Amino acid sequence: MNSFGRIFRISIFGESHGKAVGVTVDGCPAGLALSPSDFEADLSRRKSGAKGTTPRKETDLPTLISGVYEGKTSGAPLTILFENANIKPSDYNNLVKQPRPGHADYVAVKKFGGFADYSGGGHFSGRLTLALVAAGVIAKKLIAPISINAQIIEAGGNKNIEEAVENAVKSSDSIGGIVECQALNMPSGLGEPFFDAVESLISHLVFAIPAIKGIEFGSGFEAAKMRGGLHNDPIISSEGTTKTNNAGGINGGITNGNDLVFRVAIKPTSSIGLAQQTFNFESNKVEELKIVGRHDACIALRMPPIIEAATAIVLADLMLLEHQIKRVHLAG
Amino acid sequence: MNSFGRIFRISIFGESHGKAVGVTVDGCPAGLALSPSDFEADLSRRKSGAKGTTPRKETDLPTLISGVYEGKTSGAPLTILFENANIKPSDYNNLVKQPRPGHADYVAVKKFGGFADYSGGGHFSGRLTLALVAAGVIAKKLIAPISINAQIIEAGGNKNIEEAVENAVKSSDSIGGIVECQALNMPSGLGEPFFDAVESLISHLVFAIPAIKGIEFGSGFEAAKMRGGLHNDPIISSEGTTKTNNAGGINGGITNGNDLVFRVAIKPTSSIGLAQQTFNFESNKVEELKIVGRHDACIALRMPPIIEAATAIVLADLMLLEHQIKRVHLAG
Amino acid sequence: MNSFGRIFRISIFGESHGKAVGVTVDGCPAGLALSPSDFEADLSRRKSGAKGTTPRKETDLPTLISGVYEGKTSGAPLTILFENANIKPSDYNNLVKQPRPGHADYVAVKKFGGFADYSGGGHFSGRLTLALVAAGVIAKKLIAPISINAQIIEAGGNKNIEEAVENAVKSSDSIGGIVECQALNMPSGLGEPFFDAVESLISHLVFAIPAIKGIEFGSGFEAAKMRGGLHNDPIISSEGTTKTNNAGGINGGITNGNDLVFRVAIKPTSSIGLAQQTFNFESNKVEELKIVGRHDACIALRMPPIIEAATAIVLADLMLLEHQIKRVHLAG
Amino acid sequence: MNSFGRIFRISIFGESHGKAVGVTVDGCPAGLALSPSDFEADLSRRKSGAKGTTPRKETDLPTLISGVYEGKTSGAPLTILFENANIKPSDYNNLVKQPRPGHADYVAVKKFGGFADYSGGGHFSGRLTLALVAAGVIAKKLIAPISINAQIIEAGGNKNIEEAVENAVKSSDSIGGIVECQALNMPSGLGEPFFDAVESLISHLVFAIPAIKGIEFGSGFEAAKMRGGLHNDPIISSEGTTKTNNAGGINGGITNGNDLVFRVAIKPTSSIGLAQQTFNFESNKVEELKIVGRHDACIALRMPPIIEAATAIVLADLMLLEHQIKRVHLAG
Repeated sequence: MNSFGRIFRISIFGESHGKAVGVTVDGCPAGLALSPSDFEADLSRRKSGAKGTTPRKETDLPTLISGVYEGKTSGAPLTILFENANIKPSDYNNLVKQPRPGHADYVAVKKFGGFADYSGGGHFSGRLTLALVAAGVIAKKLIAPISINAQIIEAGGNKNIEEAVENAVKSSDSIGGIVECQALNMPSGLGEPFFDAVESLISHLVFAIPAIKGIEFGSGFEAAKMRGGLHNDPIISSEGTTKTNNAGGINGGITNGNDLVFRVAIKPTSSIGLAQQTFNFESNKVEELKIVGRHDACIALRMPPIIEAATAIVLADLMLLEHQIKRVHLAG
Repeated sequence: MNSFGRIFRISIFGESHGKAVGVTVDGCPAGLALSPSDFEADLSRRKSGAKGTTPRKETDLPTLISGVYEGKTSGAPLTILFENANIKPSDYNNLVKQPRPGHADYVAVKKFGGFADYSGGGHFSGRLTLALVAAGVIAKKLIAPISINAQIIEAGGNKNIEEAVENAVKSSDSIGGIVECQALNMPSGLGEPFFDAVESLISHLVFAIPAIKGIEFGSGFEAAKMRGGLHNDPIISSEGTTKTNNAGGINGGITNGNDLVFRVAIKPTSSIGLAQQTFNFESNKVEELKIVGRHDACIALRMPPIIEAATAIVLADLMLLEHQIKRVHLAG
Repeated sequence: MNSFGRIFRISIFGESHGKAVGVTVDGCPAGLALSPSDFEADLSRRKSGAKGTTPRKETDLPTLISGVYEGKTSGAPLTILFENANIKPSDYNNLVKQPRPGHADYVAVKKFGGFADYSGGGHFSGRLTLALVAAGVIAKKLIAPISINAQIIEAGGNKNIEEAVENAVKSSDSIGGIVECQALNMPSGLGEPFFDAVESLISHLVFAIPAIKGIEFGSGFEAAKMRGGLHNDPIISSEGTTKTNNAGGINGGITNGNDLVFRVAIKPTSSIGLAQQTFNFESNKVEELKIVGRHDACIALRMPPIIEAATAIVLADLMLLEHQIKRVHLAG
Repeated sequence: MNSFGRIFRISIFGESHGKAVGVTVDGCPAGLALSPSDFEADLSRRKSGAKGTTPRKETDLPTLISGVYEGKTSGAPLTILFENANIKPSDYNNLVKQPRPGHADYVAVKKFGGFADYSGGGHFSGRLTLALVAAGVIAKKLIAPISINAQIIEAGGNKNIEEAVENAVKSSDSIGGIVECQALNMPSGLGEPFFDAVESLISHLVFAIPAIKGIEFGSGFEAAKMRGGLHNDPIISSEGTTKTNNAGGINGGITNGNDLVFRVAIKPTSSIGLAQQTFNFESNKVEELKIVGRHDACIALRMPPIIEAATAIVLADLMLLEHQIKRVHLAG
């Protein structure tokens, strides 16, 4: 299923080492100012280059194929294309013979019968998140003045993130991390129970991002240890402000106007420099595997703009459904 | 949004203190043997009555309105109705005046303009999970021999669950808990990337259940603290068995044939016997609120069959999509 | 697929000779006044009883199971149930042995493997249109002041409808007919190209009604014979009024504010009193078949309220999408 | 709504005079051989160039952006791009000032607030059917051995099509036409009642094509004049063959294995050389309008491959749903 959303609908396509990756956004209101430079900030935050991220370099310049006319969205489907320049198709046969632990190599063969383009992860690649971030840029503009901020708050179990990443790189290994996301200036009334609770939609989109292992809203797993008398958030103003925010800004699947807060757990990158013992389907026994190629030591470092994009996409759709965003966007 | 699923599609309806709650299952293969007695075991597990659960008593007998003919599913939409017998409509005005902390009272007014039937939670009530469990019973029959088992593994931060519940009841308070769910005899190849990853679909449905605050698959939040060398699950047999199961049975959003494992965090019930301080929209100041009425001290106790149902519903849909369940069910 | 719509979503269930037929409407705005008496007029127009219609008598009283609170829609899914009182389960084996020409007997066996409840047509029965009409009643209230009027304009090729029907009854045969539907006071801007053109959605829903063989909008099939100079509708006022209405009120799949006009062709009822020659799968040869039981000589007579309902359902959904109906309905 | 389908899902994008038009096909089974040359035949049939068609010339070469690996579909979303070479952006202001009769100019302003790219029809242009035809090529390969053949059977009310077109061109006017589509070697059991009847899905997709005014299946509008005794198709063989095919191969919304037959009515092209009288919103009165630019005198001439594509796309989706096409395509 390559699409998500009811009104603000995104469809993605592309492979890591194919011609391009891209996204089509349908249902975006006409009249929203949009230019390639709008994408720069978030695409650059997602990019690799810092310590702990892959040395693969891509310019990641978006081409607006359709849906934008004279600098504004036209109401037609909006397609954004990112060409893949830095392509190094790998030997697919190796991945079929000895699937990499933690990767989708094995399931891809099971599901697609050996026809998948699996170079660099193919359609499973984290490169597809480029499409999410691009759609998120548009969504963020629509949902203003809501502001969304995600940041890595822990890496490898450590608050001193830089140090933890450095150690992982030194040992040719990788580490996981936790990203916290907050959305401020939230309106109340978003969410479509029973099945499209805000948490349902955000978690649906977030778990589509490779490497996510968990998500919790507000008090999250801590809530399981708490008592109701402490966990309940008393309302303390006529605007619905609550004293605490264990709810993470959501009651009954609907936003209550307080800050939206959630955290996601990101696993350590599966590709590591260390040799691993795993099954070789050709020799029919467990053998050593050494992965060559570029990879991130801490993929969590690149997650914040992706998590923000997922959040913005969900909120844009819910605001259109709830008529909090107009179908024709006439704002300045 | 009252429906979920692509082929095996469920639609729910009903309010806690209305005439009935129910569910329509569309896309269920014809030919599956189904009788009211099939629902007994899971409905009974979900029922209240044990210490720590609400004293509200409902017979919860399912009426098969349509879709079953001579003891077998007919291929037509299958509707199951549960009449509400034990109804005590509460005074809605009180909830509008002074919304209960932790409940959906406040957001319901914001979203539905004061027209919602909010007695006992109305459509937001946990009673709607009866519909989920009923649909889950059908799904479980379809996905055999997969077996799904969920159980509460912690309450109020305590492994000694009975004791923790007893203490909560004594103090007129409530406690949260953690439920772990495992699915055995899993086939590989289920899941529809990019957006319908197995985790995406399960979390979508699980977060629609009232009181859920978090979900994690396999190693979950622990993964954030781990290194890749330890986290990666080496394949050790030609059947794809892995040595460890940090992946929770899923790679790249697709099942790998190992056990599916996830845990959910459940908050303490919002309704408690203790007095609480919260905003009164009539007097326009914070005042004491005392909630009367029946409630669960530990709603997590009743969750296992609900979580199992959500899992089974997702797997049934994915197996139909992947052609692992036939559209006409001819099994014994 | 038992459901239709994006925001105003209907799901139907039931069989002709099962316990009940019904419909769930999701996404209906809260606050719309609704009582069982609202359904009387249209349900009564759909009813049998007049010459040329089946003598089966049903009270067709709607039970509002959920979604209505103190006389107004609550914002929760709205389920309406119609019990089947006048049930005469037929011998299914006969239909498998010698499928009736023009009926779905044969395809039901092919698709559902012999498990379908086929008494009186089962889920394929025209009785399911009761659910459509009920949902249409709600939709009509939402889309006011649009008014929709459908009427039979031809039966058996004859404008003198009563006479044509009488002749068909006399000869134990059945006749087809044409129904024309007009929607007045139309707003412009409804329709969601490329794929959800107004004609696409109306025809989708109309062809779900049993016995429909064709649909045409505005000039319809006549357009195929015309020249552009004559067919084009010149705009003659600042409100977008056109001189002619060959477009049927739609350009580019979007309403233009002029009257919406379309016609549907309805086939003669398949069940007739005359003996027919058709294949007997038991004897393996063509043999005579005589159908007993109740039927309509001219099903087109009962179509107008059903066609109106389909139209109203589509328009309600499009108006919600286009924000022309508010999600909370505060009108008098 | 830019997408259509449940499993075999297409999403289109692009404008007539933008950078490109394209389509993404999701849910196509992996393993289907596919090369750019597969598209040649149908794209060439759709092309202009013959008498009565627009002189705009486009090479219409498809670029496979994603989803194809080593000459076979990979299971990932498949995106096909057609660059627009022959672009002549028109003066949009004129269309806003004096909307062309029969075109979507007026409704586009009403719906998209003046932000639409309306050069050459923009996203409403017939050029978007290029995307449909491309997706249809893939669908046709999947549904083999079903063969679909559409042809124009009438133009301007005349069976002598060439002559009718010539006359229209001479008089600087345009003419409509009728296209008949047949699908042979049909399997039984396709169609998903109640709402996804085969006729519902085909008409939904067909009415998305610009210029379609009507559709009829089998006996169609003629059925309205017939008697049941004559209209019913007697089954005459154990394979379900019927003596007549008034049903057009469909009963109860489900294919019965006989040929699928339907006809569509196409209006005369709206753009004509003749001067027309229509409203000028600037001068606020009816004034003469003369349309310059390229256009088709008989757009029906180019419809057959488009109608075939729509049919194939619907059948591919239904066959995947009914498990008549495998998710991994292993055929030669």
